[in-house]
Amino acid sequence: MAETVSFDAAMRRALELAARGPVTGGNPQVGCVLLDDSGAIVAEGWHRGAGTPHAEVDALSHLADAHGLTAVVSLEPCNHTGRTGPCSEALIAAGVARVVYAVSDPGHESAGGAQRLRSAGVEVVPGVLADEVRASLHPWLTAVARRRPWVTVKWASTLDGRAAAADGTSQWITGTAARQRVHEQRAASDAILVGTGTVLADDPSLTARGDGGELLPHQPLPVVVGETAVPADAALRRHPAGLYETGTRDLAAVLAALDARGIRRVYVEGGPTLASAVIAAGFADEYAVYLAPALLGGARLAVGDLGITTIAEARRLAITSIEQLGDDLLVMARPAKGH
Amino acid sequence: MAETVSFDAAMRRALELAARGPVTGGNPQVGCVLLDDSGAIVAEGWHRGAGTPHAEVDALSHLADAHGLTAVVSLEPCNHTGRTGPCSEALIAAGVARVVYAVSDPGHESAGGAQRLRSAGVEVVPGVLADEVRASLHPWLTAVARRRPWVTVKWASTLDGRAAAADGTSQWITGTAARQRVHEQRAASDAILVGTGTVLADDPSLTARGDGGELLPHQPLPVVVGETAVPADAALRRHPAGLYETGTRDLAAVLAALDARGIRRVYVEGGPTLASAVIAAGFADEYAVYLAPALLGGARLAVGDLGITTIAEARRLAITSIEQLGDDLLVMARPAKGH
Ligand SMILES: NC(=O)c1ccc[n+]([C@@H]2O[C@H](COP(=O)([O-])OP(=O)(O)OC[C@H]3O[C@@H](n4cnc5c(N)ncnc54)[C@H](OP(=O)(O)O)[C@@H]3O)[C@@H](O)[C@H]2O)c1
Ligand SMILES: NC(=O)c1ccc[n+]([C@@H]2O[C@H](COP(=O)([O-])OP(=O)(O)OC[C@H]3O[C@@H](n4cnc5c(N)ncnc54)[C@H](OP(=O)(O)O)[C@@H]3O)[C@@H](O)[C@H]2O)c1
Repeated sequence: MAETVSFDAAMRRALELAARGPVTGGNPQVGCVLLDDSGAIVAEGWHRGAGTPHAEVDALSHLADAHGLTAVVSLEPCNHTGRTGPCSEALIAAGVARVVYAVSDPGHESAGGAQRLRSAGVEVVPGVLADEVRASLHPWLTAVARRRPWVTVKWASTLDGRAAAADGTSQWITGTAARQRVHEQRAASDAILVGTGTVLADDPSLTARGDGGELLPHQPLPVVVGETAVPADAALRRHPAGLYETGTRDLAAVLAALDARGIRRVYVEGGPTLASAVIAAGFADEYAVYLAPALLGGARLAVGDLGITTIAEARRLAITSIEQLGDDLLVMARPAKGH
Repeated sequence: MAETVSFDAAMRRALELAARGPVTGGNPQVGCVLLDDSGAIVAEGWHRGAGTPHAEVDALSHLADAHGLTAVVSLEPCNHTGRTGPCSEALIAAGVARVVYAVSDPGHESAGGAQRLRSAGVEVVPGVLADEVRASLHPWLTAVARRRPWVTVKWASTLDGRAAAADGTSQWITGTAARQRVHEQRAASDAILVGTGTVLADDPSLTARGDGGELLPHQPLPVVVGETAVPADAALRRHPAGLYETGTRDLAAVLAALDARGIRRVYVEGGPTLASAVIAAGFADEYAVYLAPALLGGARLAVGDLGITTIAEARRLAITSIEQLGDDLLVMARPAKGH
C-alpha cells in the first residue's frame, strides 16, 4: 500500500515534468522519475520534443548507475528506433529493476515496450494514475490512434452567431484579450487550417504573436485548404513556418497528409465554409468559440450549413471550460458522449 | 457621522424588506423602517403590490404613535392620491420628524413628496444608498421615466445562433433547468410578447409554470403582436391572465398601450421576426440569451436582420451575468454604455 501511494506521488511528479516539454510536435509530453529502494526520487527527466532524448533516457543521463532503481514514467516506454533508440532497451541496459507507467503507447510502430521489458525480467506496473495522464495526453493519444491530427475548430462570433457585418467587415468583433488568446492557441498547434476564401478576403498572416506583436517561439504551419491558388503576393508566403498549399477540398486527404508529417494538433481558423465542412464531416474534436457581447444580425454566419435537418440530429457538445477574456467569452467544448 | 452610518444600515434593511414585495405590477418594490431617537428600528413595512398600502403606511400601521420618529424609505414618499392616499400626508399626519430616502420618485404624477414634507416642517434627507437602490429599481425607474415598459428580449439558441433545425423542430434546444428558468423569468414579468408567427407555428400556452407543471401564483399577460388574428382554438385563449391581441406591428404603440395598463416589465419571447424588430427599433433594455451546447447550422436563426451594415454599427452589449443551467448557459446582458 505504501508503495502504491508513493507510485501515485511519483507519477504526479512525472506528469509535472512532462508539462515542461512542448505540447506541439509529433511526440507526446512525457515525464520520468527514478526512485531508489526507499521510494526517494534520485533523478528526473522529460522529453523536450522530437529529435531530443525521451524522458526515460533524459532521467537516466543524470545518474552514473541506475541498477535496481524503479522508473516511473507517464507513458509506456517505447520499443521503437526512431531518431533515438528504444527506451525499453535503454532501461534494460541501465539495469532498472522495475518500470511503472500510466498509459500504454498507442503508436502503431512504437508499442510493445512493456512486453520487451517483461521478457528481459524487468517488473512492469502499468496503469498508475492512468485516467489523469490519459486526460492530459488525450489530443495526442487520439491523434496517434486515429492516424489523423486532433482538430480544434475556432471561430469568433457575436452572441447571435455572426462572424461579420453585412459588408464583410469583422475587425474587431472580439477584443484584445480574446485575440491574444487566439495567438496562444495558434502557438499550441502544429498547423493552422484556413480556406482559400479567407486567404483571398483577408490576406491573413496566421503567425502566432505575443502581446507586443513579436513572433512567439513556436510557429504553426499554415495550411490552405481548397482548389484556388494562394496569390503570389499573399502574406502567408512570408510565414516563418513555410506554407502548405493543399490544392484540394478533400479534408480526409489533407488530414492524412498532415498526419504523415507528424502533425498532431490542427487549429481550424475558418472561414465559415471550411469550418462547416470540417464539422459536417465529423472531424471536429474540439471547439474554441469566442463570443463577443454584441449583435449583428444579417447573413454572415460563423457556421453555415451542417447538413442537419431535424433537432434530433443537432451536434450536441459538452462544454469543457468557459473563460471571460475582457468583455468576451471563450467557450471550449467537445462533442458530447455518443455524438 | 454615527447617524449617517445608521441611516445606511436602516436603508439596507428597507431594501431587504422591499424585496419581499412583488417585482411585477405597476408599483415598485419599496421598503420602510421607522427609527426612534436612539436609531433603533421600531417598525417595518413594505409594499405588497398595487391596491395595497405603500411601505410607509404599512410601517406606520404597526405603531399607535409615530411622533418624532425617523422614517427611512427606499423611494421618495409619493405625493399622489391613487388607490391609496399620498404617503407624504400620512407621514405628516403621523407626526414623523424626519424622512430619509434613497431615490426620487420618477412618477409624472406622484413626484413632489419631499417638497410637501419639507413645507410641513419635516426634515428630509435624500440620496442615502442611492446607487444601490437605483440599481435594484432600475427596470421600474426606467419604465416610469420613459413611459414604456422595461423590455427583456429572450431567445434560446445553439452556440451557432440557431433557434430551430431546418424542418422547424426546436423541442428541446435547451434542457429542463434552462426551461424552468424561463418560467421564473415569465413569472417576474407583467407581460409576455410573442409574434403571430410563433402563435401559429407553436400554439404556445405562455403560462408561468413550476417544476411540476403547476401554474405559478403570478401569471404575466400574454400579448400577441402582429396583424394576423389569433386562431379561435389557440391555447393562448385559455391563458389564466387573459389575452391581449394587439392586431398591429407597431411596437411603439404596443408599448404605449402596455404602459397605460401599468405594465412595467415585458418579456419578449420571440419568434425571430419580433425579437429582431424589437432590437432593431432600440426597444431592447435587456437580453436573456439561453445558449445550448449544440450546433445546428442552417437557416433558422434566433435573430434575423437588424439593419446593421458594417461592424462599427454592431449593437455592443455589456454582460451582467452568466449562469450555468444544467448543460446550458444563460447570458444576461444590457446595451453597453453609449450603445
Ligand atoms: N470570425 C471568424 O472567426 C472568421 C475566421 C475566418 C474567416 N472569417 C471570414 O470569413 C470570410 C470568408 O468566408 P469563406 O467561407 O468564403 O472562407 P473559407 O471557408 O476560408 O473558404 C471557403 C473556400 O474554401 C475552399 N474549400 C476548402 N475546403 C472545402 C470544403 N471541404 N468544402 C467546400 N469548400 C472548401 C473552397 O474554395 P475553392 O474553390 O478554392 O476550393 C471554398 O470556397 C472572410 O470574410 C473572413 O473575414 C471569419
Ligand atoms: N428558440 C426560441 O427562443 C424561439 C422562441 C419563439 C419562437 N421560436 C420559433 O420561431 C418560429 C416563428 O418565427 P417567426 O419569426 O415567424 O415568429 P414571430 O416573430 O413570432 O412572428 C412573426 C410575425 O409577427 C408579426 N409581427 C409583429 N410585429 C412585427 C414587426 N414589428 N415587424 C414584422 N413583423 C411583425 C408579423 O406577422 P403579421 O403579418 O401577423 O403582422 C410577422 O410575420 C417558430 O418556428 C418558433 O418555434 C423560437
